[in-house]
Amino acid sequence: MTSADETQQRPAGDPAGPALDRFYTVIPAGGVGTRLWPLSRASAPKFLHDLTGSGTTLIRSTYERLAPLTGEKVMVVTGDPHRDAVCAQLPELDEADLVLEPSPKDSAAAIGLAAAILHRRDPEIIMGSFAADQVIAPVEAFQSAAREAVVTAATGRIVTIGISPTHPSTGFGYIRRGQALGVEGAPSAHQVVEFVEKPGEETAREYLDTGDYLWNAGMFVAPVGLLLQHLAAAQPELHAGVVEIAEAWGTERQQEVMERVWPDLPKTAIDYAVAEPAADAGDVAVIPGHFTWDDVGDFAAIARLNPAKEQDAMTVLGEKARVYSDQSSGVVVSDTRRVVALIGVEDIVVVDTEDALLVTTTDHAQSVKQAVEALREKGDSDVL
Amino acid sequence: MTSADETQQRPAGDPAGPALDRFYTVIPAGGVGTRLWPLSRASAPKFLHDLTGSGTTLIRSTYERLAPLTGEKVMVVTGDPHRDAVCAQLPELDEADLVLEPSPKDSAAAIGLAAAILHRRDPEIIMGSFAADQVIAPVEAFQSAAREAVVTAATGRIVTIGISPTHPSTGFGYIRRGQALGVEGAPSAHQVVEFVEKPGEETAREYLDTGDYLWNAGMFVAPVGLLLQHLAAAQPELHAGVVEIAEAWGTERQQEVMERVWPDLPKTAIDYAVAEPAADAGDVAVIPGHFTWDDVGDFAAIARLNPAKEQDAMTVLGEKARVYSDQSSGVVVSDTRRVVALIGVEDIVVVDTEDALLVTTTDHAQSVKQAVEALREKGDSDVL
Repeated sequence: MTSADETQQRPAGDPAGPALDRFYTVIPAGGVGTRLWPLSRASAPKFLHDLTGSGTTLIRSTYERLAPLTGEKVMVVTGDPHRDAVCAQLPELDEADLVLEPSPKDSAAAIGLAAAILHRRDPEIIMGSFAADQVIAPVEAFQSAAREAVVTAATGRIVTIGISPTHPSTGFGYIRRGQALGVEGAPSAHQVVEFVEKPGEETAREYLDTGDYLWNAGMFVAPVGLLLQHLAAAQPELHAGVVEIAEAWGTERQQEVMERVWPDLPKTAIDYAVAEPAADAGDVAVIPGHFTWDDVGDFAAIARLNPAKEQDAMTVLGEKARVYSDQSSGVVVSDTRRVVALIGVEDIVVVDTEDALLVTTTDHAQSVKQAVEALREKGDSDVL
Repeated sequence: MTSADETQQRPAGDPAGPALDRFYTVIPAGGVGTRLWPLSRASAPKFLHDLTGSGTTLIRSTYERLAPLTGEKVMVVTGDPHRDAVCAQLPELDEADLVLEPSPKDSAAAIGLAAAILHRRDPEIIMGSFAADQVIAPVEAFQSAAREAVVTAATGRIVTIGISPTHPSTGFGYIRRGQALGVEGAPSAHQVVEFVEKPGEETAREYLDTGDYLWNAGMFVAPVGLLLQHLAAAQPELHAGVVEIAEAWGTERQQEVMERVWPDLPKTAIDYAVAEPAADAGDVAVIPGHFTWDDVGDFAAIARLNPAKEQDAMTVLGEKARVYSDQSSGVVVSDTRRVVALIGVEDIVVVDTEDALLVTTTDHAQSVKQAVEALREKGDSDVL
């Protein structure tokens, strides 16, 4: 997206304009996606794949979804081994906006460091953190919620986007919302009362009935100063570390400081380090998002996100795929040019890569993680 | 097998000795084994694979099963493209004993030509025809039946080996036996009354009840002169053709005559061209074989022939196989070094080759043939 495109998206006199001018997107791109092995693996994690048949990878889709709001003001935090793949996916990315983690450190370190670097550039920046491996539709509904989140963040709040739940899921954490905030340009902004962990089934049903609970999708938008202030309070050591790295960022000391400080940073999630304490302090707002959202956790999700076009037809992902199926249903993910023939197999999951093949069913999609662990123990790490 | 081994198998004064001295094995090695795609294919048909986990290919096993009776007197009839593979499997084979068909012509031409060539070498030869792709156990029971067949053939009969049926199969043709023949050295030799086609279920049950019916395994042993005599009567054109080729065999004209005559030979089965008319003439005997016999027609047969060693364990074929399975049963045939992970799939058949992958169930093993036809129509012949 060029800034010309960006301008087209913003009508003259848009009340969100001043807030959006401060907006900077941060995309944490971590996590192997073990349940998507052998497609997703250490050397080619989930976000580097096209899991929706859209023709673009998840990280590229994330970038393009934000571009109309953020332009090229995008920072990516990812593992050092993924530098080249990420640059190939996001050629627009400035080198100063690519943060390479020497080792995985959970979300608080990744997002905290991004906030610290951006804060040194401009303390007025409002950053939005959106994971690289989520599938969202319709994009317009997401953009509308993100815009309200930015406007609300400009009033001095940490803002999360919560998904309007469609069923009593026990797989997500929830956000309980309080009173409407009456923010100009963000009519759906509400106070957050609390974040709650994944509930049991009965509790989930109660949540749904009240209408006050939203799914926590881990998306939030915040003024970098406010975010760092909460991080400093809850995790002073982590805060000091990311500020030290940020001070060296873009200088010749960057590499040396990163390698010295990063390994000792505490491993914790941004939810504990910032979001929950900030909510307790009354500093968190929520914008309800009326869109579907999936982090493509396993192959059952892929089958769900890519319904077969005809009865008795397989969902097929893979540009080069050559699939023949007869009396079969399920999903084939092909990373090769091999012919895959399926006969009489239902709800099957076949994932065909150069060095590893997975055959399971959508019902057993969650068990892929154990298989990967078993293969590691067997000494088959070359394919993990 | 060396002739020293051969001698060990034949006690001094063996009454079968003179007959066995005339014995020559012919191994027709044809048929792609389409139901075993993608393992078996035009370039690597069934008989070139180890389908039993024994460590030897089916054609090699066939050769070794007969060696104690026949020594190195073995002729192979196969398709021209398989010359090198067959020679690699049977290094003992003399060049004059390798008959390469320019094109597939069904069994009457293949066996008729072998008979004609052997007849020119020595009209006293008793040939036994045993397909290259059968799995037989115990080998001793087969050898005992074959020995009786050779002794009976020496009395001037075409002799078939019939399998004692264990259930009312509708998948095989049957042989109805008549009176005992009282051949010295072949106590179980009986007259053949008739050959009958694959029966319906009720008829098959009746056959089993009478005790007079045996499965037709397509194995027969005959003096070459008698075989050619029946071929001349039933298929004069075919007979004239194979005799013309045989006359040029081993001369500089061999290639020229083969290429000129072979293409116009009628396509028919040896059953129609020789066995059935000979039975009508009272010239056919049968030896009951008390062994299991399988032509490994599909992957269900492979699963059956290779039972998994533990409960909840897969049958795995393939020297290089790297298979992980969890809550799964069935068979994996691996022709690659790829890791194959199976989770929660039952009675599954996975066949993994470099350029094609099949996933089906033992219940659908018969449908593989249609898949191959469909792939051919789709233009995927490169993997067939």
